Order: sequence, then structure tokens, then C-alpha cells
Amino acid sequence: MLGGVVDDDTYDRVFKALAHRTRRRILDLLRDQPRTTGELCGAFPDLDRCTTMQHLGALERAGLVIAQRKGRERWNHLDALPIKLIQARWIGDYARSSVELLATLKADLETPTT
Amino acid sequence: MLGGVVDDDTYDRVFKALAHRTRRRILDLLRDQPRTTGELCGAFPDLDRCTTMQHLGALERAGLVIAQRKGRERWNHLDALPIKLIQARWIGDYARSSVELLATLKADLETPTT
Repeated sequence: MLGGVVDDDTYDRVFKALAHRTRRRILDLLRDQPRTTGELCGAFPDLDRCTTMQHLGALERAGLVIAQRKGRERWNHLDALPIKLIQARWIGDYARSSVELLATLKADLETPTT
Repeated sequence: MLGGVVDDDTYDRVFKALAHRTRRRILDLLRDQPRTTGELCGAFPDLDRCTTMQHLGALERAGLVIAQRKGRERWNHLDALPIKLIQARWIGDYARSSVELLATLKADLETPTT
């Protein structure tokens, strides 16, 4: 999704996902370590489980969270690549090429082989 | 505004400002060099001047653009501090996560798909 040319729709998804404080808190929690969906729901006792999972879905669609199923559990990982792309776009020309290389590798990996 | 404790309202303003493609284009233009408001309006011939100036105002309130008046002209500068704060919050000062991502990609590539 983030490989090669990163399009406006991708940036729209990333910034809309980051524009909500609960979603930013989820990313804070995942920055420290991967967490199960159950753990994340438990971290927001004021929200019902369904709401927390919707926030998680928005983060996943934006490429900020990668989920991995292990048995009955779903482990959520922070993917900082979109943050690196933001940084590369407006701060670091020096960082741009390596970030784009990573993005291309990732996109290639995610393309289903036929 | 962005010094010391950066609160949720500040992050809301930054991400809402960045969630619009025209505003991202304005920041692209300012990354290269400071520009007058007249120049920026000229860069978006499809938008009326008032709309472009509203986008500029949203960027300014988010702390992403600093305006400086010189005689009759208003010069707009990119302020990358909010971008640096985003990077610091979820990536940190170290480059470890990109190394880890590469390692994960490599491991995934070496895992035979079924």
C-alpha cells in the first residue's frame, strides 16, 4: 500500500486515523510492545469493546497497525512506516530514499503472488 | 504553543490540518523555500484566493506555518516542529524500528509460503 508512489488517499487515511486521541493512545501503547486486542480493549474501560475495535480497524486500514493472529489471540503491532514517510516528506531529504526503499520492499511483500 | 506539554488539542489541530491534500501541497511548496501568500495562491489556480488563504490559516493555527510580514508582503515559512513531535512520539530518536522492519521483512521473505 505504501510502496513507490504514496498517494493522497493513503495520506488521507493516515492523518484521519491520527486525528483522534483514542487512536493516538492506542499507538502509544503499541509503541512499547505488541498487545492483544483484549488487552487494548481493557486499556479503555470507558469505551465499549466495539468502539475500541473500530478505532483499531481505522489504524489498521491506515497501515499504522499490523495484526497477527496466534491461536485464539490477535496481536497488534505498531508499524511506524507511515510516520517515517511523514517525516521524510517534510523534514529529511536524507532519509527519503531509505524510507521509500523500505516502503517498496514492504509493498512487494504484500502483493499476493499468483 | 508546542513547547513543553503538547496536549491533545494541539495534536488534533495538526492532524486535521494535515488531513487535507491541498494543505499538504502547501507544505510541500514551503519545504523548498518560504513563499509569499500571493505566490501560494498562484500555485493553486483552480482554487479561489479565499479558499487557499483559509487552508493557510488552518496550517498556521496548527503551528505548521509561520507568517512574517515584510512591507506589503506576507511571507510563509514551514515550521517542522509538529512533524518532529510526531516522529519523537512514535519513532523516537533511534533508528531501531527501521532496522527491525528490515529484519522482519527478511525473515518473512525467507519463510516459505504455503
